Order: sequence, then C-alpha cells, then structure tokens
Amino acid sequence: MAKKALILIADGTEEMEFTITYDTLVRAGVECTSANVQSGGSPYGSVGTSPALVVCSRGVKILPDTTLQPLSAGPDKYDALIIPGGLKGAETLSQSTEVQTLVREYYERNKIVAMICAGTLAAKTAGLPSQPVTSHPVVKNDLASTYDYKEDSVVVSDAVPGKGTLVTSRGPGTVFPFAFKLVELLCGKAKSDEVRVPMMFPRGVDY
Amino acid sequence: MAKKALILIADGTEEMEFTITYDTLVRAGVECTSANVQSGGSPYGSVGTSPALVVCSRGVKILPDTTLQPLSAGPDKYDALIIPGGLKGAETLSQSTEVQTLVREYYERNKIVAMICAGTLAAKTAGLPSQPVTSHPVVKNDLASTYDYKEDSVVVSDAVPGKGTLVTSRGPGTVFPFAFKLVELLCGKAKSDEVRVPMMFPRGVDY
Repeated sequence: MAKKALILIADGTEEMEFTITYDTLVRAGVECTSANVQSGGSPYGSVGTSPALVVCSRGVKILPDTTLQPLSAGPDKYDALIIPGGLKGAETLSQSTEVQTLVREYYERNKIVAMICAGTLAAKTAGLPSQPVTSHPVVKNDLASTYDYKEDSVVVSDAVPGKGTLVTSRGPGTVFPFAFKLVELLCGKAKSDEVRVPMMFPRGVDY
Repeated sequence: MAKKALILIADGTEEMEFTITYDTLVRAGVECTSANVQSGGSPYGSVGTSPALVVCSRGVKILPDTTLQPLSAGPDKYDALIIPGGLKGAETLSQSTEVQTLVREYYERNKIVAMICAGTLAAKTAGLPSQPVTSHPVVKNDLASTYDYKEDSVVVSDAVPGKGTLVTSRGPGTVFPFAFKLVELLCGKAKSDEVRVPMMFPRGVDY
C-alpha cells in the first residue's frame, strides 16, 4: 500500500521547501496531502474543508489540498508529518495547538516527524524530548538550549526507543537531501536513488 | 530600478522548476510576474486578466499572478522571459504561437531568454538560430539536430552579436544553478552570492 504524508502549509511558508518536498515524495509514489493551517487558532479549521489560498514567503500562491482537520489528520491516516520553514509560516505552524498535538501524536505512535528550516521550532513548542536536531541558523538560539544542536544538512534522530523518527534540516539548499532521506525512510534506498537520477543533479553533488 | 522577469506557467509545469526560479529571483530583488498560458491557443488570453489555477506536474496547485497578455508581456516590460519544464506544461508553452512570438521578440531585443528541462523545446518552435543549448535528456533528440547540444548543467549562449542571451538548463536538480546564473546576469555576481548564502547548501555543493 502506498505510503502517505501530510505536509502542513500556512501564509509565509517557504515555497521551495514546501514544493521540493511534496514533488519529490509524489515522484516516489507517496500520497501527499497539503493542509492549510490558518493563523489565529484556525477557528474554522474543523468545520470547512475548502482550503484558502496560501501566499508563500516570496509571493508564490499555492492552493493546498485541504484545510487542516485535526480529527482526520492523525498518525492512523498518514505515515509522516512534515513541517516546512519560512519564518512567518513556521511561526503559525509551531504556535498552533492543533499542530503541537499532531506532532506529539505522530511522535508517540512511532511515525516520521520531519521539520525543515524554522519549522524545527515545532519540535520545541510541541515539547518533544531532547535529541539531535538542526534548523536554519536564524532560529538556532531558540533550539540549542533544549536540543543537541547539529550543523549537518539533514539530522535523523531515533533518540527514544519505540517513539518516532525526527528528521530535521536547514533551509532551501538542503531540501533535496531532506526529501530524499524521507523517501528512503518511507520507501527504501532503491526508490530514493530511482527518483533522484532523472532530476539531473550536477556532477559532484553527492546527495 | 529593479529588474523584472516574466515566468510562464501552464498545467503540467514542473513545480520545482517554476518555484525555485521565482523564489530565488525574488530573493535577489527581481520583480517576478508569473503568467498562465492556457492550452488550445488560449482564446481568452488577451481578454481577461484573472488567472486560472494551474495544476503542476506532481499535483501542486499554483495561482499565477496573471494570465498571459501578449501585448503587455513584451521585452519593453521585462528584462527576462523564463520558460520552465515539465513535459505537458512545456508542450503547451512551446506550441503556443503567442509564446513563440514573445521568445523571438525577447531574443531580437537583446534580452535574456531562459529555458529549463523540456522548456528548451520553445527555442526550436520559436525558430531561434543554432547555438549551444541543453535540456532534459528526454527531449535531447528533438533538439540535437538543430542545436549544438551540450550536457552541462547550465548553458549560457550569446551566439549572435546584438541578439539575446539564451540560458538553458536540464531539470529539477539544476534549477538552483540556473536561477543563480539568472541572478548573476540580471543583478551581478555579488547579488547571486548574497542570495545563495542563507539558503544553507551542503558543504561540497559548488554552485
């Protein structure tokens, strides 16, 4: 059965981080659903299903697949929860109590929780335990006192036996290796290699 | 004065190629306008201004900034014309007589004409003269008899003195160096370096 991933998005989400992750997972056969998380506590989040247009960090306008419906967005429905960066978007996502609850549920249920750039702030606001993480340097100081902060492009943490896998990454320049790592974890290394080849990376790029 | 770029988009456009180019140029201060080119000769292309939603090659739904209005899309308004790939989207763009006319106008007026992946087909359908180009390998056979086909990640051609600069590239894996080259040509190498640093590319990536 095809793996499934839920990718959150909000006004101010970094459009390259969102799009590269979504597209690469779809190429691997993962069924992706993007869900709009509205700022201000999303008062209509659990009522309507018609998503509003999102204006991303550099002005690209994306229509998400759905509006976040917490009751149907849990780890019984998806294999991975993905939180992109972009400062304003990551602030909305990490401050949402609904998102914080989902992050804890995916982590408790031994699923993949993946965050990139400022999106890693959601690990802290959700209260995930101390473990190796990375992020965009602009939010390093918010994370370094709580977590074992790394400067690797992609950090995979299985710190607590039986709990989820936390995958974190740094910014637009590390989204491809981040997405390939998610494909590897969900579908295996062979699928990741298969997806990578037709993308035509320059010689010398080793992810 | 800020430089301006017109980026074409259609159903089936490769969303990473579109988004990475748009976002990177905006980070450099280039004013980007995305214009929807509808298939079937775009009968309403020069009437309405309200763009329709585009469904990209892997399902990301993007609302362009405008619908292509050929009379206000010419080289007197923009410094660069950019054509992304994605097989179905590139077919629509390269077969559009309006797009073919724009490609020739930008080229004749010594502007930048940039194509990536299958988007390079538009050089041929517009009748640009023989010169060095690259593309995704999947359309190499359509181009190699007409052009001096290269396998470099980004090819910059100023083959005809006084005519435009043709910039071509290969696929999602080469969009970052393609976008940085466009920034360099429009805004200078220092701006390209400035935009690149906060994106956090892995060590060893040399574009």
